[in-house]
Amino acid sequence: MNELHPQTIVRLEDDAVVVLDQRRLPDEEIDLRCASAAEVAEAIRTLAVRGAPAIGIAAAYGVALAAAKGEDLDDAHAVLLSSRPTAVNLRWALDAMRDDPSRERAERIHADEVARCRAMGAHAVELFPEGARVLTHCNAGGLATGGYGTALGAVRAAFEAGHVEHVWVDETRPLLQGARLTAWELEGLGIPHAVIPDGAAASFMARGEVDMVVTGADRIAANGDTANKIGTYSLAVLAAHHDLPLVVVAPTSTLDPASDSGADIPIEERDPAEVTARFPARNPAFDVTPAELVAAIVTECGIHRAPYPESLPRETAVAR
Amino acid sequence: MNELHPQTIVRLEDDAVVVLDQRRLPDEEIDLRCASAAEVAEAIRTLAVRGAPAIGIAAAYGVALAAAKGEDLDDAHAVLLSSRPTAVNLRWALDAMRDDPSRERAERIHADEVARCRAMGAHAVELFPEGARVLTHCNAGGLATGGYGTALGAVRAAFEAGHVEHVWVDETRPLLQGARLTAWELEGLGIPHAVIPDGAAASFMARGEVDMVVTGADRIAANGDTANKIGTYSLAVLAAHHDLPLVVVAPTSTLDPASDSGADIPIEERDPAEVTARFPARNPAFDVTPAELVAAIVTECGIHRAPYPESLPRETAVAR
Repeated sequence: MNELHPQTIVRLEDDAVVVLDQRRLPDEEIDLRCASAAEVAEAIRTLAVRGAPAIGIAAAYGVALAAAKGEDLDDAHAVLLSSRPTAVNLRWALDAMRDDPSRERAERIHADEVARCRAMGAHAVELFPEGARVLTHCNAGGLATGGYGTALGAVRAAFEAGHVEHVWVDETRPLLQGARLTAWELEGLGIPHAVIPDGAAASFMARGEVDMVVTGADRIAANGDTANKIGTYSLAVLAAHHDLPLVVVAPTSTLDPASDSGADIPIEERDPAEVTARFPARNPAFDVTPAELVAAIVTECGIHRAPYPESLPRETAVAR
Repeated sequence: MNELHPQTIVRLEDDAVVVLDQRRLPDEEIDLRCASAAEVAEAIRTLAVRGAPAIGIAAAYGVALAAAKGEDLDDAHAVLLSSRPTAVNLRWALDAMRDDPSRERAERIHADEVARCRAMGAHAVELFPEGARVLTHCNAGGLATGGYGTALGAVRAAFEAGHVEHVWVDETRPLLQGARLTAWELEGLGIPHAVIPDGAAASFMARGEVDMVVTGADRIAANGDTANKIGTYSLAVLAAHHDLPLVVVAPTSTLDPASDSGADIPIEERDPAEVTARFPARNPAFDVTPAELVAAIVTECGIHRAPYPESLPRETAVAR
């Protein structure tokens, strides 16, 4: 098992935040050095670093870098906060850096997120039946979280417990985070997998070759509505039609008590050229899955089930 | 309106069957010359020519070419029949060429398929509400049928009648027939459209921006179960969840009375490298939509509704 080290994914050096450039994977493993908060924001905006917890961590390091370099911290916060709109972890991490913009605080935020992933994995194992054939979407692995992973961390923990037989990896158009990143992580971990086109998921469900769907989240509203990578809502409807559970795995830093429902979550619309530059196109980066289609939400606090307004933790994680 | 001429898509010349190479579109409009039945079969296998009616037409021309060149006709039939397994139009056209393998018979088959498309379009118009925002998948246009199109022919007829406001084009992974071919045809026809990732269709349905789904078919079983490009079944489930009709448009040459249900339809599994060559992958080219998810099937005979065993034409088209 080839563990992806947290510091490989994102770290602070003396003069730069260094991220493994996820746009180049799996072909090349190349570091991208960001010498200012603005360059970290650009790395987030262009998806060199992506995944809700990971962009929160990168932003925290960006603030620490700005503080070490004597940059204006209000400017640093503003440029980082505006880099992407949907994942609430970004705001959470920036808020956590307000009163202590130190390197040590940023590193604790990073370590805590990885620890939360491991806790989620331990909680989630019981949701995986013996021999589970799991379908996942996008990348909610170590790359997305600064280490270990949310949905993929749960898959990994369940695999180590002997519960996972196979992982179906939605390729996740337009940017192929499944086909490029999740498959690469699963290969490293030695977990059997196959990439499928997003449109094929329903067919494998109908054939009886899928037992459950597991995804991460970019923001979870107070009522349990969940924003995640475009295509997740599609899987949620398909899973319900085939009587399969959809399990969402996300740390409490992804909870947004200020959003009453999914209708309050801003959905990023990205450049249509990511879909096709030749014809008109639309490119919403996320969709919202209504809480009633989610069988369980796993946080570091445990397994939560409907009614989510009562079962979800009321407080998000507090940075140490 | 830039009409795609039937002879541009596929034609017989003295020494070759010439097809517009659909693998090169939309970047290049290049003819591929097939100098034998085996080369026509290879063009079908590699998707230079694709779409259920179009491969039937190409195969008919392939037999006529073999006859003109004095090739063994049993060999020609065998190599063409084995080129792709799912579309029944291939077998239908080859059967039609058995007793008269002439160029004139092949050209009548081609002209008849285009005429059937125009008839389907005329029948289908009434299924499109005013201002319809239509979602389609793969390419069921002129390219797929040797001219005019099935699903896209219906969209075109409805657009000309003033019923269509916008077409959502599923990009249709892995080979992007929607993003490459359908968008190219719609551009030529001047019909407003936008390409979306396959995983985004559900999201646009949930936003109330889709009024109906229209697709073609590669084979329709006696009970109305319909095989079509992978991802169609996914759309059928999603359309049902959002109370949207799924309309299938296909000529009677696509009906297969010998298949009692979808379970009898062979599903082609193509090279996984079409999905990704870097990791394990699966690549079923088609899926089956159960009849109960299909609101209407339009053939050249009219609009057919459930129960399909009673409403579908009992006889497939007869070649003149």
